[in-house]
Amino acid sequence: MTSLHNLPTPAAIVDIAQMQRNIDRMQARMDGLGVRLRPHVKTTKCLPVVRAQQAAGAQGITVSTLKEAEQFFAAGITDILYAVGIVPDKLEQVLALRRRGCDLKLITDNAQVAQAVGRFGRDHGHALEVWIEIDCDGHRSGVPPESTTLLEVGRALAEGGSVLGGVMTHAGSSYDLDDPVALEALAEQERAACVRAAERLRAAGFDCPVVSVGSTPTALSARALPGVTEVRAGVYVFFDLVMANVGVCRPQDIALSVLTTVIGHQPAKGWAIVDAGWMAMSRDRGTQRQRTDYGYGQACMPDGVLLDGYVLSGANQEHGILSRAGAPDPDIVTRLPVGTRLRILPNHACATGAQFPRYEALDAAGASVAWERFSGW
Amino acid sequence: MTSLHNLPTPAAIVDIAQMQRNIDRMQARMDGLGVRLRPHVKTTKCLPVVRAQQAAGAQGITVSTLKEAEQFFAAGITDILYAVGIVPDKLEQVLALRRRGCDLKLITDNAQVAQAVGRFGRDHGHALEVWIEIDCDGHRSGVPPESTTLLEVGRALAEGGSVLGGVMTHAGSSYDLDDPVALEALAEQERAACVRAAERLRAAGFDCPVVSVGSTPTALSARALPGVTEVRAGVYVFFDLVMANVGVCRPQDIALSVLTTVIGHQPAKGWAIVDAGWMAMSRDRGTQRQRTDYGYGQACMPDGVLLDGYVLSGANQEHGILSRAGAPDPDIVTRLPVGTRLRILPNHACATGAQFPRYEALDAAGASVAWERFSGW
Repeated sequence: MTSLHNLPTPAAIVDIAQMQRNIDRMQARMDGLGVRLRPHVKTTKCLPVVRAQQAAGAQGITVSTLKEAEQFFAAGITDILYAVGIVPDKLEQVLALRRRGCDLKLITDNAQVAQAVGRFGRDHGHALEVWIEIDCDGHRSGVPPESTTLLEVGRALAEGGSVLGGVMTHAGSSYDLDDPVALEALAEQERAACVRAAERLRAAGFDCPVVSVGSTPTALSARALPGVTEVRAGVYVFFDLVMANVGVCRPQDIALSVLTTVIGHQPAKGWAIVDAGWMAMSRDRGTQRQRTDYGYGQACMPDGVLLDGYVLSGANQEHGILSRAGAPDPDIVTRLPVGTRLRILPNHACATGAQFPRYEALDAAGASVAWERFSGW
Repeated sequence: MTSLHNLPTPAAIVDIAQMQRNIDRMQARMDGLGVRLRPHVKTTKCLPVVRAQQAAGAQGITVSTLKEAEQFFAAGITDILYAVGIVPDKLEQVLALRRRGCDLKLITDNAQVAQAVGRFGRDHGHALEVWIEIDCDGHRSGVPPESTTLLEVGRALAEGGSVLGGVMTHAGSSYDLDDPVALEALAEQERAACVRAAERLRAAGFDCPVVSVGSTPTALSARALPGVTEVRAGVYVFFDLVMANVGVCRPQDIALSVLTTVIGHQPAKGWAIVDAGWMAMSRDRGTQRQRTDYGYGQACMPDGVLLDGYVLSGANQEHGILSRAGAPDPDIVTRLPVGTRLRILPNHACATGAQFPRYEALDAAGASVAWERFSGW
């Protein structure tokens, strides 16, 4: 039986039971708020995970690349939102997917792109569905809900013969918060901005059936979502140390970890050297400016018990430096001898998962099975 | 013809002519210093690149994972140094490679591991070759050259029946420097520490034929290398912005870039949004504490001309935020309209390359051919 004791290291471990608890928690919350859940599958790019999300009640998926759309459509999922602004160069691939039966929706925040999508659709006799991206917090893309651009984009879509399917926004700045009151306020800001954009479009005579919002922190902090039809969230399926610092999970809720082996020490410095460097953990230092800086990750014993204060304080490509924050551990050699196996909780589950070609999914009996994941574009 | 104008974005572009100039520069330097060059292939994990290094005169390779050893041995390369401290759990895979004819060398800095390697070799009737890792600058692993541990490890290897093949060190702290005088001094420190360790082992009666040192910055800064038999270096093959800040290359020497497309703007902020986020660039922020902070990368036009001051100031998974450092560009929308293609120079070529399943190698005529690279363990 393959298990934590004989898997080659480093390996990306998924605790299936914990993942299921995370899925159930989010789905129950969305059911309670009366909205559909459209998980963002960029976190895992892994079919067994997405199947578990669908089985729990999710409806449709969100993707960040057309490769994700291709792969999940090939697995039978048709209701797909491509949530990165479309450019004309990518329309041929979009059209091919739609002609094969994929109900692929696009987004834009740009009137010229909206016109180009319309032209492309007319040239090919196929109306494409586009949602308008709304900026609710200034963190990245989108048009402000009160802007004239919003109506220009709506008009360009409608006049071009495209289907204006809805509006969508993502309060990415929620990752910078760590206070429940501020999170609830941002969730309301996200909701209000997106609903307002939909109301303005409708008042101008356009259809706007979908109102789509979401990020893991706001999804778990919203008190009510009137006017919203669906929520998108990704990282909740595994959670990570960034989310623990934001305050929407505990470290023990994290379902993804990197299995590693102690390969040496620097006793005078209190260092154990492990075979999980940044190639395994990723270079993500998302907790650097948060409440607790976990370096490149928080160490646990193989059974998941936290090694309080022991973090990956440094990382080279295939080397991690494990040390105790504050006072170096003078007994590191005897506490964690060469060959000791540890699990490292990641700062950012999306980034760490992307370093691996597969997850090793661990069932309640401790047996592991390989769950393939894909990467690239 | 596939070229910069029609490749799907994001894509990892290798400028073949520039790569060859980088290879030739390092090889000529090593030839002049009278030492062998053993390139570290963890940077590229790509056979056409390694073939070009071998064709220029490199002898043997350095790897950071046993998967790299497997893959390059399958391609016919037999002289391989696995430059991460060995642990007993990995010896079965090592033995299988050696029995198939791979001249795989291991490293350790630990007497107990040395004993375990000896036991394993005796149990299987096969003497393994091990080099002792030396700590020359305190940055990571290795035994100090003046330590008693050095001789204990040597004795454990010799008494255990292993082959003590040599000593090796890596002045990883060279990445923190940016002054030619300090770099030359560190190169001498690296050399002296490793040569001293070899001398102490020989004085104690042990063979120690190989003295192996190296990092790209010290390899390009050493004035002379008496006593050294070989140098290891990896990132020089492509170079990157970290190396430009260290001062051992210019930005225009960088042979790797990420091709990206402008997908939108935030005009009031002077932002262009591009489809190269951290999934393409990696999360590496290696220039953050250097002389020039390039954010997630330096923008160039497709012909390689630098867009001075324009960097990826932010990155989400599939979104990059391109902006001008200092004063926001009020003309960003007309300067870089939606659909514009750009190339982004990476902070860290090893990390950025690892995000892609292949490089698109560009010849002098502008045609691209796919060079596969592998990942994982």
